[in-house]
Amino acid sequence: MVIVMNPEATEEQLQRVLDRIHDAGLKTHLSKGQYRTIIGIIGDKKKIASLPVEAFDGVEKAVPITASYKLVSREFKPEATIIDINGVKIGDGSLVVMAGPCAVESREQLLEAAEIVRAAGGQFLRGGAFKPRTSPYAFQGLEEQGLQYLAEAREVTGLKIVTEVMDAASVELVAAYADILQIGARNMQNFHLLKAVGRCGKPVLLKRGIAATIAEWLHAAEYILNEGNYNVILCERGIRTFEEYTRNTLDLSAVGAIKYLSHLPVIVDPSHGTGKWRLVRPMAMAAVAAGADGLLIEVHPNPAEALCDGLQSLNPANFAVLMEDVQQLAAFLRRRSA
Amino acid sequence: MVIVMNPEATEEQLQRVLDRIHDAGLKTHLSKGQYRTIIGIIGDKKKIASLPVEAFDGVEKAVPITASYKLVSREFKPEATIIDINGVKIGDGSLVVMAGPCAVESREQLLEAAEIVRAAGGQFLRGGAFKPRTSPYAFQGLEEQGLQYLAEAREVTGLKIVTEVMDAASVELVAAYADILQIGARNMQNFHLLKAVGRCGKPVLLKRGIAATIAEWLHAAEYILNEGNYNVILCERGIRTFEEYTRNTLDLSAVGAIKYLSHLPVIVDPSHGTGKWRLVRPMAMAAVAAGADGLLIEVHPNPAEALCDGLQSLNPANFAVLMEDVQQLAAFLRRRSA
Amino acid sequence: MVIVMNPEATEEQLQRVLDRIHDAGLKTHLSKGQYRTIIGIIGDKKKIASLPVEAFDGVEKAVPITASYKLVSREFKPEATIIDINGVKIGDGSLVVMAGPCAVESREQLLEAAEIVRAAGGQFLRGGAFKPRTSPYAFQGLEEQGLQYLAEAREVTGLKIVTEVMDAASVELVAAYADILQIGARNMQNFHLLKAVGRCGKPVLLKRGIAATIAEWLHAAEYILNEGNYNVILCERGIRTFEEYTRNTLDLSAVGAIKYLSHLPVIVDPSHGTGKWRLVRPMAMAAVAAGADGLLIEVHPNPAEALCDGLQSLNPANFAVLMEDVQQLAAFLRRRSA
Amino acid sequence: MVIVMNPEATEEQLQRVLDRIHDAGLKTHLSKGQYRTIIGIIGDKKKIASLPVEAFDGVEKAVPITASYKLVSREFKPEATIIDINGVKIGDGSLVVMAGPCAVESREQLLEAAEIVRAAGGQFLRGGAFKPRTSPYAFQGLEEQGLQYLAEAREVTGLKIVTEVMDAASVELVAAYADILQIGARNMQNFHLLKAVGRCGKPVLLKRGIAATIAEWLHAAEYILNEGNYNVILCERGIRTFEEYTRNTLDLSAVGAIKYLSHLPVIVDPSHGTGKWRLVRPMAMAAVAAGADGLLIEVHPNPAEALCDGLQSLNPANFAVLMEDVQQLAAFLRRRSA
Repeated sequence: MVIVMNPEATEEQLQRVLDRIHDAGLKTHLSKGQYRTIIGIIGDKKKIASLPVEAFDGVEKAVPITASYKLVSREFKPEATIIDINGVKIGDGSLVVMAGPCAVESREQLLEAAEIVRAAGGQFLRGGAFKPRTSPYAFQGLEEQGLQYLAEAREVTGLKIVTEVMDAASVELVAAYADILQIGARNMQNFHLLKAVGRCGKPVLLKRGIAATIAEWLHAAEYILNEGNYNVILCERGIRTFEEYTRNTLDLSAVGAIKYLSHLPVIVDPSHGTGKWRLVRPMAMAAVAAGADGLLIEVHPNPAEALCDGLQSLNPANFAVLMEDVQQLAAFLRRRSA
Repeated sequence: MVIVMNPEATEEQLQRVLDRIHDAGLKTHLSKGQYRTIIGIIGDKKKIASLPVEAFDGVEKAVPITASYKLVSREFKPEATIIDINGVKIGDGSLVVMAGPCAVESREQLLEAAEIVRAAGGQFLRGGAFKPRTSPYAFQGLEEQGLQYLAEAREVTGLKIVTEVMDAASVELVAAYADILQIGARNMQNFHLLKAVGRCGKPVLLKRGIAATIAEWLHAAEYILNEGNYNVILCERGIRTFEEYTRNTLDLSAVGAIKYLSHLPVIVDPSHGTGKWRLVRPMAMAAVAAGADGLLIEVHPNPAEALCDGLQSLNPANFAVLMEDVQQLAAFLRRRSA
Repeated sequence: MVIVMNPEATEEQLQRVLDRIHDAGLKTHLSKGQYRTIIGIIGDKKKIASLPVEAFDGVEKAVPITASYKLVSREFKPEATIIDINGVKIGDGSLVVMAGPCAVESREQLLEAAEIVRAAGGQFLRGGAFKPRTSPYAFQGLEEQGLQYLAEAREVTGLKIVTEVMDAASVELVAAYADILQIGARNMQNFHLLKAVGRCGKPVLLKRGIAATIAEWLHAAEYILNEGNYNVILCERGIRTFEEYTRNTLDLSAVGAIKYLSHLPVIVDPSHGTGKWRLVRPMAMAAVAAGADGLLIEVHPNPAEALCDGLQSLNPANFAVLMEDVQQLAAFLRRRSA
Repeated sequence: MVIVMNPEATEEQLQRVLDRIHDAGLKTHLSKGQYRTIIGIIGDKKKIASLPVEAFDGVEKAVPITASYKLVSREFKPEATIIDINGVKIGDGSLVVMAGPCAVESREQLLEAAEIVRAAGGQFLRGGAFKPRTSPYAFQGLEEQGLQYLAEAREVTGLKIVTEVMDAASVELVAAYADILQIGARNMQNFHLLKAVGRCGKPVLLKRGIAATIAEWLHAAEYILNEGNYNVILCERGIRTFEEYTRNTLDLSAVGAIKYLSHLPVIVDPSHGTGKWRLVRPMAMAAVAAGADGLLIEVHPNPAEALCDGLQSLNPANFAVLMEDVQQLAAFLRRRSA
């Protein structure tokens, strides 16, 4: 943390600021420049973060120097984290595909979707049993019934299951069925939920909040790791911008940023990220080329009958083309880097 | 809902779309223009909302015509809602001020803050006992102990209490102490929590999400009203934009928009909305002039000692000036409109 | 400027960075902390700004400490700038109203609008003779003919004229007719145009760019002052955000920010800022309460016939009500501060 | 255009709206639904666009159905435009690379950079002779001297030249030296400049504005085509969002969107798009995989000495790696699609 003093700050004000910092058990480093006096604060990150320095008289602003997350950082753990989910590895350089319908709508729909995913070479079946919806009048999910269909689909196809948990009270229930617990974008800063999945121990897929900075996203992951659960996969799914053509703006630069800042694996959801099925294939290709560890894709046996997000779901034929393309691309990139 | 067909859509595709809409129990109105064929869909809003029309072959886009919220709308209830909280009215044309520290830090700090608020003429004491924080290492609140201090401050000063509830499991606990339950910006779309406070019956202060459109905010309120709780106060607290000088961009036009679209009262939080104590007074004045029903203000006995948000908290002297100013302004505006 | 070194930076890399800074004629201040080594750079702002420090090996990031604008800053000139435009003062604590149609459409329309503005007590007539339009097929303005109508309206009503200049080549022409040259939001960083109006000497109304930070806006003003023209009025007119209900998000906190950072007067345009005539009155009131030096308002004799922006223009009756309201409010606020 | 009437609109108001539309030479299609009456307007796009329909009494809102650009659209010209620049084709399925320093700084620097680009297999040399800079105190470019160095570099290396033109008055001068005229992001809606390059006839590289929607960007291109110049290449270079880690958010979904909406070629600038040299390679790869027709890359013989944007420039070694990678990827993708 660097503190910048007002040009008109008095020596007395400066001294009070220094005293206050020293009282907190921190050291300071003073630098008087031509325009400004600045104070570098040296010491424990947590103590520094808790100082309301800008509220001191004579202070113009405080500039953070280092991020306050730790466990998720590359500095803390330089080698990449590889997560093994009953034999499927995420983060080891291979490409993992999680696909399926937005919502579990019926046993038939889900088993059909699962077969499509399996046939095309996906490893995970996705599908929401609990659905967060903007309107209270929209379809809210089949709840536990949906979880049972997911488990049945796993039995039949061998696919692993990733599905969303929406509140701390349901973590145990969802964890009894799922291989990966998904935290949705709207819940990225639902801290009770983050702590609950942190204590639960199951691998977690943490979607980026719709208006979350990369730093906030990593802090949210830190909540989970801080409870002892290191099996966190990050998922870029688009951020909210002024652009109206796409549902969100898929921020693929987040892939490279996460790889640099953190050791955690990161996957990309081009379906929510664009909201338009025509853009899913090019953005899936782009995600793979950017270095993503996996993809989260909406596919529906019949998008025109979907109870949610029909317009961003691929039909089985388009999904098969996409899978062929991304797998070939991933194989090409692996050969290049080998 | 209006459906716009692709220029190259076939008659057969058009017919299939019409059939699909009719099958859902809805009527259509066809209009063939120079550039496009468009279909107006007539019938029940919920049925319309559940059609994945853009996933039909031949459809270019679907354009919603009316919002899908109902209970919160002016159409549904033309007269303004006035909420009576043990004798203090919100939405009746008077100005309500809710003030206090960001977090309850100690018994002494809170009682001191309460006295400052009371002396300056505020009606509500605010203060977080449960604090949502970006970092797991930041102060998370005194929890139930904090609630007890709030209740004690109410005893001593006669102020009503508004405080945040962060998850459905704590609603009963917080409701046992608070006069108004606050839903924070990060939880605006925590739908389990919205339903829980909807069932609880206590008045609710619903903060706008950091990246929520006005329509999404009203939909979130709809969740609460849909459970039978009509005592909802909306709170504009700034949205996330590219601007870096302020912590958020306080969207005061939301006040007028809410007044036009909804019957619910709306207040403004210039402290979080700007993140800078110097901007709190001008934006509080602006909020009152824009027609807000109240203000939510951070005041701390000693901002430089605050455990959170010290830089946006007013000190007692500045708070007293602000209160004098906004009350005079509110009185002037009431005389003008009388 | 503070440079933060990578934790793994070598002593050699550190030394090369220091040497490079010293070679540029600047001094350094070294601070070795627990997590990071940081270098404070001391010396001439321009020299500091030109160092590509983040491109040096071993540097993690560079943090600017002070803004690089100078002439527009409060530090440079602590007292507020008052601009006298042929007897009408802007920035002296009074409220100036500039009003009129979006575009000059005809002699009759303009004279009628001018009479409406004069009758209601406005001081300036606005109206575009050159119109920047998103589509090449939209009405582009009457050009010099429009300027002549504006001059005629000034003759008839005594109102001063503010009108937009869109390119450097037209500055002389527009300056021959206008009392204030307006730079539109799209041209806020048209640096040739900024230099041209800086050399021209006529007062300039500089609208904030649709995605410009406050710092960038002040830098744009700095271009004008740097050419010797100190008569610059800033105009907040809304920024682009994700919100769809309003055309832009009017950032009234910019008024207080500008007053703190700069000595220049600042006015507010609630017409473009909201894009909805119903929101113009409440946001005009809010702007005045926030401390704006003036308002820029669209009024049209018959908004339903307007060639541009009809939906945000007030009709004469609504404009008269607004004028009465904002003038009374301004008078009240002046009495309070006296 | 579809007009939505207020639920409380009278029959008389409805009739007046219909009359007004018919008076403008347009046809209407009336649809009375359960909640709303809507009017479809049929006829000439330009006439429709000029109606200020929302200003009519009784109208709730107007919903545009089709974009108002024409010449740039796929509907107007279904086959992709291929631009031939003295033998180098853009838009034919091959990958074009334009690379070089942000600014022309000296003859030596430019010739060295040109040799780096040529050696690595690039086709175009980029480099600004006129530089738009946020601050008036930053390096503004070598102007005509810089253009001469560019021409000399073309002589020596055989590379084509792409360089920015900042105002209409300089179009002729820049066109005398450049093979492609670049319009920078800040000038995307400098309509005089767009018309000037439209009349000039030289191929134009049109960068997306920092806060421009895809529709606005296409409208800006429409200005150029409308003057008779069909040789326009679009360039995605990142949009402004709330994210602070990257300089901009590179919107790669724009590539697929442009390919669907327009026949014009589109390239990507990952250097400005991310602002961090570490992210340039992954985002260049992603852009190629997303289907971009080319890349615009900053490379500098010595980034640590660059007069602008040093932190986003690649050094020669990193650039050579990137070129090898993107060319191999492009070749792989071509084989796949063959």
